[in-house]
Amino acid sequence: MATVRALAIPAAGATVEPATVERRDPRPDDVVIDIRYAGICHSDIHQANEDWGPAIFPMVPGHEITGVVAAVGEAVTRFAVGDRVGVGCFVDSCGTCEACVAGLEQYCAAHPVATYNGRDHDGAPTYGGYSERIVVRESFVLRIPDALALDAAAPLLCAGITSYSPLRHWKIGPGSRVAIVGLGGLGHMGVQLAHALGADVTVLSQTLSKEKDGLRLGADRYRATSDEATFDELRGGLDFILNTVSASLDLDAYLSLLRLDGTMCNVGGPGDPQRHLAYSLIQTRRNLAGSNVGGIRETQEMLDFCAEHGITAEIELIGAADVNTAYERVLASDVRYRFVIDIATLA
Amino acid sequence: MATVRALAIPAAGATVEPATVERRDPRPDDVVIDIRYAGICHSDIHQANEDWGPAIFPMVPGHEITGVVAAVGEAVTRFAVGDRVGVGCFVDSCGTCEACVAGLEQYCAAHPVATYNGRDHDGAPTYGGYSERIVVRESFVLRIPDALALDAAAPLLCAGITSYSPLRHWKIGPGSRVAIVGLGGLGHMGVQLAHALGADVTVLSQTLSKEKDGLRLGADRYRATSDEATFDELRGGLDFILNTVSASLDLDAYLSLLRLDGTMCNVGGPGDPQRHLAYSLIQTRRNLAGSNVGGIRETQEMLDFCAEHGITAEIELIGAADVNTAYERVLASDVRYRFVIDIATLA
Repeated sequence: MATVRALAIPAAGATVEPATVERRDPRPDDVVIDIRYAGICHSDIHQANEDWGPAIFPMVPGHEITGVVAAVGEAVTRFAVGDRVGVGCFVDSCGTCEACVAGLEQYCAAHPVATYNGRDHDGAPTYGGYSERIVVRESFVLRIPDALALDAAAPLLCAGITSYSPLRHWKIGPGSRVAIVGLGGLGHMGVQLAHALGADVTVLSQTLSKEKDGLRLGADRYRATSDEATFDELRGGLDFILNTVSASLDLDAYLSLLRLDGTMCNVGGPGDPQRHLAYSLIQTRRNLAGSNVGGIRETQEMLDFCAEHGITAEIELIGAADVNTAYERVLASDVRYRFVIDIATLA
Repeated sequence: MATVRALAIPAAGATVEPATVERRDPRPDDVVIDIRYAGICHSDIHQANEDWGPAIFPMVPGHEITGVVAAVGEAVTRFAVGDRVGVGCFVDSCGTCEACVAGLEQYCAAHPVATYNGRDHDGAPTYGGYSERIVVRESFVLRIPDALALDAAAPLLCAGITSYSPLRHWKIGPGSRVAIVGLGGLGHMGVQLAHALGADVTVLSQTLSKEKDGLRLGADRYRATSDEATFDELRGGLDFILNTVSASLDLDAYLSLLRLDGTMCNVGGPGDPQRHLAYSLIQTRRNLAGSNVGGIRETQEMLDFCAEHGITAEIELIGAADVNTAYERVLASDVRYRFVIDIATLA
């Protein structure tokens, strides 16, 4: 075991503070990673506050991790010391269920082992990326292409893949008319990715305050959902709506924007019951769906795609001392578009 | 114009009574049909009661129509006097929108012309199958295969196609694990069709009162949704749920039965807002969808499929004088499984 510095939340609702955690000695198939950057995901805050149910404390959040390989177990074949690598939302899965076999570890029937606030198969709690070092099975480690800066690539490991996976699953490409709801951490990735995939992209946001950014990121148009005319203009015209907003929306209004066989996919996770009229789905055979991050193979595909298209997150790099303030700003939607912690400041 | 006998509802909420309506003189592409049988669909009652919004009165319901061709316009090529034919939920559409061109007239962007409680393109109100005769454009007339009895085939035109279309759209076949929710008019068609398509079929009903029928119709198992054990037994095991129930269900409980990428499709039309948790969809990329009857081409395919597999509705044949009582029994779910009016009794 090795003791490493980290930022931890000692109990539900508490603030982030310096701490130490133990990292296991590397097993034969483990990669030891010196973490350089960790993104702050809204779900870090949800879990720290137990918004989604009982959590494990102390909690070291962080599942948008980039770093450099510091050591490898003797059975590791794909990574070497010095390699630029990343870790996303999970660090293990059963490996044998239908989903795992299909490379969809995020839907593992036994539940994947979450990168933090989870338990390893041996029962040990997992600690995430707000930390100097992490030890992860080789098959759950991603390669960060040289073209991507390690800091701006960190959010790709959650915000990036969470947007990319549904766009790919619902076959978004040239000719697709896509709306991205919300221009936050996920949405600003969704706009770039959908645009790079060749889709016509509309951003739907409460106001036009981020319109300039949205257009710069690749949106073809930017519309305010506070304006009724937006729904009239777009009615029946979209193939796919990627909803990145965690708050409850008027689903019937959004569903009315879909054309025949269109899908609205939710990747935000509002906890309140969502309401819709059956008729909104029956009318033109519409679909309401959900999607959860992405599998390891698809995450690597997404990273390579981002490298090819020059896509990273737009980030605000912060020090370890700024995390609590950053949390407050995330809750106030005051971030363009992702906070990333410079782990060197943990020292 | 020709005056024909019919059963009409004079005003919202009134009972059915004998009446006459005018049928247009046949246009060049029209088929004149002597109606022999008309099924009673729950939606007849909804529309008569204006449950779905303002309706047109007097109303002659009926969109599950079978009969025999009495005359054809001079441009009609596919039908001749004496042919056994059927008419379903709509009698015209724009013919030019994307949906119509794709043979999905039910999703016509300009809305298809409903068989009753609609307006023809010339503005005339449409009158349905509770009537001696109907005049319909050739391209909206179906051929009833000889192997199907005209009375038991009538419900195929709505209940049959409404079940068949989603089963086909979501590619149900050998290996598919399907649940049919509700064993009523639609459900008893869904069970037969899903079974004939090769799927493993579970009926989910409030109680086991119709279990024997369900198994006879082709279900592999029959489970009561009033029994919590049902949800434990089936959790995560279904590819597709066809929900034929118009009442609001606990969608999260049903969604939990779906495996990865599974779909729950609603063909019943509860008017109340439906509730679900976003997590129920995100968890294993599940879909909540809707489907509305089927296009003309697919309806003919369904009729031919039913002839091939010996499938019809199980019906209770009634006379014109029994329709009001039948409505009461439909509302009390006291029908196994479809009332069909013998139009000869109108005389």
